[in-house]
Amino acid sequence: MTINVALTQVKALTFDVFGTVVDWRGSIIREGARLNAAKGLSVDWARFADAWRGEYGPSMDRVRRGELPWTGLDTLHRQSLEPLLVAFGIDMLTENEQADLNRVWHRLDPWPDSAAGLARLRARFIVATLSNGSVALLVDIARFAGLGWDCILSAELARAYKPDPAVYRTAVALLDCAPDEVLMVAAHAADLRAARAVGLRTAYVPRPLEWGPDRAPEPYTEGEFDLVAADFRDLARQLDINPRWPG
Amino acid sequence: MTINVALTQVKALTFDVFGTVVDWRGSIIREGARLNAAKGLSVDWARFADAWRGEYGPSMDRVRRGELPWTGLDTLHRQSLEPLLVAFGIDMLTENEQADLNRVWHRLDPWPDSAAGLARLRARFIVATLSNGSVALLVDIARFAGLGWDCILSAELARAYKPDPAVYRTAVALLDCAPDEVLMVAAHAADLRAARAVGLRTAYVPRPLEWGPDRAPEPYTEGEFDLVAADFRDLARQLDINPRWPG
Repeated sequence: MTINVALTQVKALTFDVFGTVVDWRGSIIREGARLNAAKGLSVDWARFADAWRGEYGPSMDRVRRGELPWTGLDTLHRQSLEPLLVAFGIDMLTENEQADLNRVWHRLDPWPDSAAGLARLRARFIVATLSNGSVALLVDIARFAGLGWDCILSAELARAYKPDPAVYRTAVALLDCAPDEVLMVAAHAADLRAARAVGLRTAYVPRPLEWGPDRAPEPYTEGEFDLVAADFRDLARQLDINPRWPG
Repeated sequence: MTINVALTQVKALTFDVFGTVVDWRGSIIREGARLNAAKGLSVDWARFADAWRGEYGPSMDRVRRGELPWTGLDTLHRQSLEPLLVAFGIDMLTENEQADLNRVWHRLDPWPDSAAGLARLRARFIVATLSNGSVALLVDIARFAGLGWDCILSAELARAYKPDPAVYRTAVALLDCAPDEVLMVAAHAADLRAARAVGLRTAYVPRPLEWGPDRAPEPYTEGEFDLVAADFRDLARQLDINPRWPG
C-alpha cells in the first residue's frame, strides 16, 4: 500500500457528472425505446443520443466565444434537439412532448457503482458536483439517480463552461479550500487537465461504455493524473489508504 | 382540512438556517461550557452568544452599505469575535484556538425536529438552504447536524446579504422556478417579508427558544404569511394536505 502524498491534503472531491457519474447515452436509449413503442417509431436512439451529445461541445463553444450571452444547458440542449428531430424524421411530437424529451437530461441513470461509491467517499470527504449542467438540472439528476451530494456546484455559478478556469476557481472558492485540497474526478482527460492547470488534484475514472461498446478508450499519459481508478468504489479504496495527515 | 391555494404550485422550499434550522445560541453555550472547563474560565456564554449574534446585523450592514466589499460571514464573525474576547476577559486563546472558536458557527446543532422534518419534506419538494452563511459554512453545518439538502444556496452566490432582493432572486433563478413556486421558510418575519416582496411564498416557523427562554415572540400580522407552522414536522403535515395539482 503506497501512500500518494499528493492526495494527503484533499478535503473535497468535485465530480464531473455527464459520463462520469451518469450514463447519459444508455438513459437516452432506454427513454427512446419507450418513445418508439408509444409513437410507433423506429428511431435508432443510440445514433440519436450520439448526435445530440455531439452538439454539446459546439453549442457551448458559441457561449465560450461570446457569440451567445450566458445560456444554460437546457436551452442549448433544446436548440440542438430541434434540427435533430427533423433529421431523424420525428415530426409528431407536440411542444410539450418535445420539452419533455429535452428534459431526459434531468432523468439520467447512474453507473452501477456511482451511488454507493459516492456514499462511501462522502463519509470522509465533502463531495460536490462540478458539471456544465445547471444547478436545477443537477438537482433533478441527483434526486432521480439517488445520488447524495454535499453541494451542487455548476458552471452556471461562474457563468462560464468547463474547461474555462473560472469554473474550477469558483468551485475552489465556494468550498473555501486551497486548490490542492480539491480533487477533480472525471472520465474525461480534458476536464482533468484544465482542473490541474488551476492547481486541483485529479482522479481519472475511465467509463469505457460512455459512448457505447465500440469507442476506443481516451489516450492519456502515465502519471499525468494523481490517481486512476476503475470506478467510484475503487476510488474510495484508493483514497482509504491515503489518510489525511492529522490536523 | 383546508387546501391553501397559494401553495399548490410550490416545487421547492428554501430555508433560512441560523435560528430556523439550527440552534446557534444553545450550540455556542454548550461549546463555551467545554471551553470554560478546559481553560478554567467562568464566562457567561449565553451573554457571549447574544453579544456575538448581536454584531451579526451591524457587520452585514457594513457590506450592505458598501463600506466593505463583499466579505464572507466567517470573516465578519471573526471581526466581531476579537473585541468580544477582550470585553469578556478571554485573553489566553492562541491564534488557532480563536480560529477554532470562530468555527463554532460551522458546528451548530439542529432543533430536534429539523433533520426528520427536512427528510419528510424532501420526499415531495426540493429543499435548499437560503442563508447568509457561506456555501462552505452551510456544507459544514449540514454534515455536522445530519441535514439532507438537495442544494446549498447562499447569499454568497448573489454576493449580497438577505434581505437584499438579489439573494432571493438568485435562488429562484438557480432553482429554475417561478417565484411563486418557491416557499421561503424562516423563523424571522423580516426574511419572509423580503422574500414575499420578490414573489416567493412564505412559511413562518417561530423558534421561541432561539434567543433563550426570556425573549418575547416576534410580532406579525395574522394572514401576512402563507403558512405558520409550529416546527418542520408540522410544516410537512400542513403541506401534505396541499397536494400539488396533477401535472
